[in-house]
Amino acid sequence: AALAGIIDHTLLKPEATYNDVERLCAEAKEYGFASVCVNPANVSLAVRLLGKSAVKVCTVVGFPLGATTHQVKAEETKEAVGSGAAEVDMVINIGALKSGFYNLVYQDIKAVVEAAGAQALTKVIIETCLLTTEEKIKACLLALYAGADFVKTSTGFGKGGATVEDVALMRRVVGGRMGVKASGGIRDLATAEAMVKAGANRIGASAGVKIIQELQERLGRGEQG
Amino acid sequence: AALAGIIDHTLLKPEATYNDVERLCAEAKEYGFASVCVNPANVSLAVRLLGKSAVKVCTVVGFPLGATTHQVKAEETKEAVGSGAAEVDMVINIGALKSGFYNLVYQDIKAVVEAAGAQALTKVIIETCLLTTEEKIKACLLALYAGADFVKTSTGFGKGGATVEDVALMRRVVGGRMGVKASGGIRDLATAEAMVKAGANRIGASAGVKIIQELQERLGRGEQG
Amino acid sequence: AALAGIIDHTLLKPEATYNDVERLCAEAKEYGFASVCVNPANVSLAVRLLGKSAVKVCTVVGFPLGATTHQVKAEETKEAVGSGAAEVDMVINIGALKSGFYNLVYQDIKAVVEAAGAQALTKVIIETCLLTTEEKIKACLLALYAGADFVKTSTGFGKGGATVEDVALMRRVVGGRMGVKASGGIRDLATAEAMVKAGANRIGASAGVKIIQELQERLGRGEQG
Amino acid sequence: AALAGIIDHTLLKPEATYNDVERLCAEAKEYGFASVCVNPANVSLAVRLLGKSAVKVCTVVGFPLGATTHQVKAEETKEAVGSGAAEVDMVINIGALKSGFYNLVYQDIKAVVEAAGAQALTKVIIETCLLTTEEKIKACLLALYAGADFVKTSTGFGKGGATVEDVALMRRVVGGRMGVKASGGIRDLATAEAMVKAGANRIGASAGVKIIQELQERLGRGEQG
Repeated sequence: AALAGIIDHTLLKPEATYNDVERLCAEAKEYGFASVCVNPANVSLAVRLLGKSAVKVCTVVGFPLGATTHQVKAEETKEAVGSGAAEVDMVINIGALKSGFYNLVYQDIKAVVEAAGAQALTKVIIETCLLTTEEKIKACLLALYAGADFVKTSTGFGKGGATVEDVALMRRVVGGRMGVKASGGIRDLATAEAMVKAGANRIGASAGVKIIQELQERLGRGEQG
Repeated sequence: AALAGIIDHTLLKPEATYNDVERLCAEAKEYGFASVCVNPANVSLAVRLLGKSAVKVCTVVGFPLGATTHQVKAEETKEAVGSGAAEVDMVINIGALKSGFYNLVYQDIKAVVEAAGAQALTKVIIETCLLTTEEKIKACLLALYAGADFVKTSTGFGKGGATVEDVALMRRVVGGRMGVKASGGIRDLATAEAMVKAGANRIGASAGVKIIQELQERLGRGEQG
Repeated sequence: AALAGIIDHTLLKPEATYNDVERLCAEAKEYGFASVCVNPANVSLAVRLLGKSAVKVCTVVGFPLGATTHQVKAEETKEAVGSGAAEVDMVINIGALKSGFYNLVYQDIKAVVEAAGAQALTKVIIETCLLTTEEKIKACLLALYAGADFVKTSTGFGKGGATVEDVALMRRVVGGRMGVKASGGIRDLATAEAMVKAGANRIGASAGVKIIQELQERLGRGEQG
Repeated sequence: AALAGIIDHTLLKPEATYNDVERLCAEAKEYGFASVCVNPANVSLAVRLLGKSAVKVCTVVGFPLGATTHQVKAEETKEAVGSGAAEVDMVINIGALKSGFYNLVYQDIKAVVEAAGAQALTKVIIETCLLTTEEKIKACLLALYAGADFVKTSTGFGKGGATVEDVALMRRVVGGRMGVKASGGIRDLATAEAMVKAGANRIGASAGVKIIQELQERLGRGEQG
């Protein structure tokens, strides 16, 4: 299904074991997900497990608080990309944004974008649940200015995840110049489809298998897919 | 109060602003806390705000998931120490521990201990809420073996914080050779004192001011302090 | 004086005559101003009058309401630059910004930036007196993202001009990556100096001669300059 | 054969005679075993019999129950080393481990390691047949932390000896930082090779001669060695 091809199959809980990563990669290959999204410590493993499959390895940087320095975020990015990560989802410096230190937020994003270079896509997690509407817009503009590829709603570790309103707002701000990734709390097909309708062109979910199975059931019943 | 001197005055929420850090440091100086514990992005600021005061700057590494690589944890440590952090609380690779990759867990801790060198204390956060008793013991032993200074119960971002039972267990495993830091959910004097009684010699709390005020009220009423 | 070198000697009132422009250009050469800032209809004249002097010709686009289309702003820019304007101060689409049509605001600025190409500097007038703080920040970020060279406070035709607070805010947002031009209501030396102190590196004023004479008087009296 | 060079040629039955020790030492020289492993009472004898040969003398401490005090284990070690023992295999305090007295287990091992100093290798017998998997791991970690050189599976006097699973587990825990000695019930070539394959780099066996003869026969028949 086309939907599978825009899902980042995600496993970011800290207690994820080798076996969990193994299963994640097998599912991603079976269902044709866009990527597996794993913590940096599991990038090498996922790269090895996926081999020559079309599934990419996505990882997270400065995750989930975004409160490391931009130097460390850049290092983390370089290492992940060097290990084979093709997509990097970084968390902005939320406190800096709220303090009005826009330069600092920009430099932070820019450091990751530059560290990723041409080798990896960059997604900027703005953690919408902690931001006002004004802050969301500014975060998107800073991500645009810094040359990132996607803005992304949520870490999934905050007090809230993606909402249709936030996805629509983010798409409105970035237009066609960036991707929008909805993530956090997307656990069924209806929610995933609502996000796409609102403007998301990438979905981050740990429930990808369930979502695609729902879609397959619907198609099996002859409904529209 | 002696109690204040073992409290790490903690502010790790990602949306903490410049003003929040400023207030944290002022409180730490006023109450005589052991340290302020801030995210890496705020280390330089806290160092500058505390100046020549006796309050140390503590920061966190691989926080809160522990799922970055040991190379990045080492880099993060070096940078924080270079910026003036005197204490570094690192999160272990929980997934590796649960996968039985003890070498990897050890190397991860060791990398931080070596990066900190003689310049900073290292505390090893084992995130007790995600571990079995056996895993807690092994994590403490690995921390001992790696030469860290403290074991610490929790990140405060997991599904549970410090318990009296865990602190007692950890103290039992490490004996007098390491410190034990209780953290996560310690919001009043009674809880803090229970942790100390169980073996903790450091308390991580965002409610340090409230805790010390409770103690001062009790002393004012002539009860035992 | 160094101050003269950052002043755009400005004459934008619609009733300005040939003689007025002539005097403007003569003063600019005499005092060493950065540029003369004239309406598009006077660009060719000013270019001819200034000849090979170091004083540049600056003009305005979409001025002062900013409410023309981006196609027209681009055309206006091309023509002015073709006539010898070296700097172009364009007014953003304020209504679009207030409507949340950030794409449109961006495209509008971008159209001018592209039309100016490498031949002219672009300054983005955000007309602060009409904007909330949040809108000011977003306008600056959009200007940054569009690749303009300066943000500028005011047209001088609105209900308010430059304030120290706005200049400081704008500088904070754009950091060292763009210039900040303070304009509107700067009629004496003290005000001009306050703007520079707040972060402005260009001053737009029709009172440039008076400002520099004040400075010369002070220097003549042996005060600090 | 290289295999002989990692075998501790072992004679620990209490009824071993002078002649038995003499033969043991002669065989060790003939076959090129790593060491002879004898009870403390036979150390001086073996040292004298081996003279300047490359074969080391290994002995056991707190053997086979591990239930002496750490002071006695330390004394026992010092004496053996003073008599010329180059390797000391000590048995941990198993009861203390099972009681959760990790400090005590550590101190016990540490006492032997310190008593041996730089003069002798120390091997820590954890007696796997009496331990749960969790206890095996913790025992290995305690041995690592105490600075011992090897962990060793078995005394050969318990209800079970080395297993491939235990050797693999122990190697996994200690990585390349310690040796792993498989001992107990290794009576033929296939078993010895299975242990090496699982991660052992030392074999304790009373059947060393038989094992090497099997290897020689195989090599004589032109099979792979």
